[in-house]
Amino acid sequence: MDMKSFFKLSYGLYIVTTKSHERESGCVINTMTQVTAEPSKICVTINKNNFTTEILKESQVFNVSVLLENAPMDVIRQFGFQSGRDVNKFEEGQYGTDIHGVKYLKEYSAAMFACKVLNTVDVGTHIMFIAEVVDAQVLSNEAVLTYTTYHEKKNGTTPKGAPSYVEEKEKTGWICDVCGYIYEGDVLPQDYICPICKMDVTHFQKIS
Amino acid sequence: MDMKSFFKLSYGLYIVTTKSHERESGCVINTMTQVTAEPSKICVTINKNNFTTEILKESQVFNVSVLLENAPMDVIRQFGFQSGRDVNKFEEGQYGTDIHGVKYLKEYSAAMFACKVLNTVDVGTHIMFIAEVVDAQVLSNEAVLTYTTYHEKKNGTTPKGAPSYVEEKEKTGWICDVCGYIYEGDVLPQDYICPICKMDVTHFQKIS
Repeated sequence: MDMKSFFKLSYGLYIVTTKSHERESGCVINTMTQVTAEPSKICVTINKNNFTTEILKESQVFNVSVLLENAPMDVIRQFGFQSGRDVNKFEEGQYGTDIHGVKYLKEYSAAMFACKVLNTVDVGTHIMFIAEVVDAQVLSNEAVLTYTTYHEKKNGTTPKGAPSYVEEKEKTGWICDVCGYIYEGDVLPQDYICPICKMDVTHFQKIS
Repeated sequence: MDMKSFFKLSYGLYIVTTKSHERESGCVINTMTQVTAEPSKICVTINKNNFTTEILKESQVFNVSVLLENAPMDVIRQFGFQSGRDVNKFEEGQYGTDIHGVKYLKEYSAAMFACKVLNTVDVGTHIMFIAEVVDAQVLSNEAVLTYTTYHEKKNGTTPKGAPSYVEEKEKTGWICDVCGYIYEGDVLPQDYICPICKMDVTHFQKIS
């Protein structure tokens, strides 16, 4: 089996947000698809360990913001490479509030979808939430961010908890244990900071 | 709810094929996503009425070919705009046979995935098949066909049975009742042939 086959699948990049009572969080996903047109249903798949999943299982509602190509890496870092258990992910940025009281991105977002969970499927390391779209709005007509663009133009990496994570065994150098970014080179400068998640050299491990 | 929001989601285009005893068929989908990395699981969502679904429910195995950007519209027409109940979809083209004996596209395909169904979810008009990837091979490193490219460059349309079908109510002209292609103009020439599915004027209805 050639794991590189999985790189041939096309995805967008999305931020799933949710809120239950006073707890709220969000995370980056690439696995949103529409599953039926009448009524409008979508599904998203999220790692079981995510704080977002914990809250979502309780709230049964979520929002999906569709990231634009011009979204800065900071936004992806903010939602994708740290846990809502440690930080308030909404401290920076501009947010609207959907019909369920869940925040969505007003900046860098092509559209938002307010969703209500209909069905939950345990798929192993991840949970799939199948949901009815209760409200949806277009926020921008600029180009959306695709997973391909993210990897090619933004040098983005895939966190280990993502459904689409594939170990990049063929690369040599140093790998960031937080976000998976690979520094290609034998010697890692002692003041090196990960360009993706801003971790220092103590988070880099030698790969060969 | 603004239905145009759904156009902001990014997809690839894929051909799902299956075989059970002597019956085999295939169809075009845009809803393939990886759902877990360990083990490698994917999901696809297919209309219940498709002949492919009928066979797949019996065989519990399928293959997914990832279409390349250079795939001619004829391939999409061949698999997407006619039923395997009426025609042998494999009469034209070059095919390999996967580990389960299911045909996959050797031409115009970036990769193939041999899949075994683990779980079936009824989502209304469609069925979602969650499957383990048993084998996967890269077939080409040329650019893959995205749904956006399909719509923009190839002037592709979405069949009414697709999860992502949205009625194009704002356009005026004549609509093909087979593939949904819209001829924009007041008067439809009597010898007009649908550029997508090759149907004649008897299949066009006035929209306004």
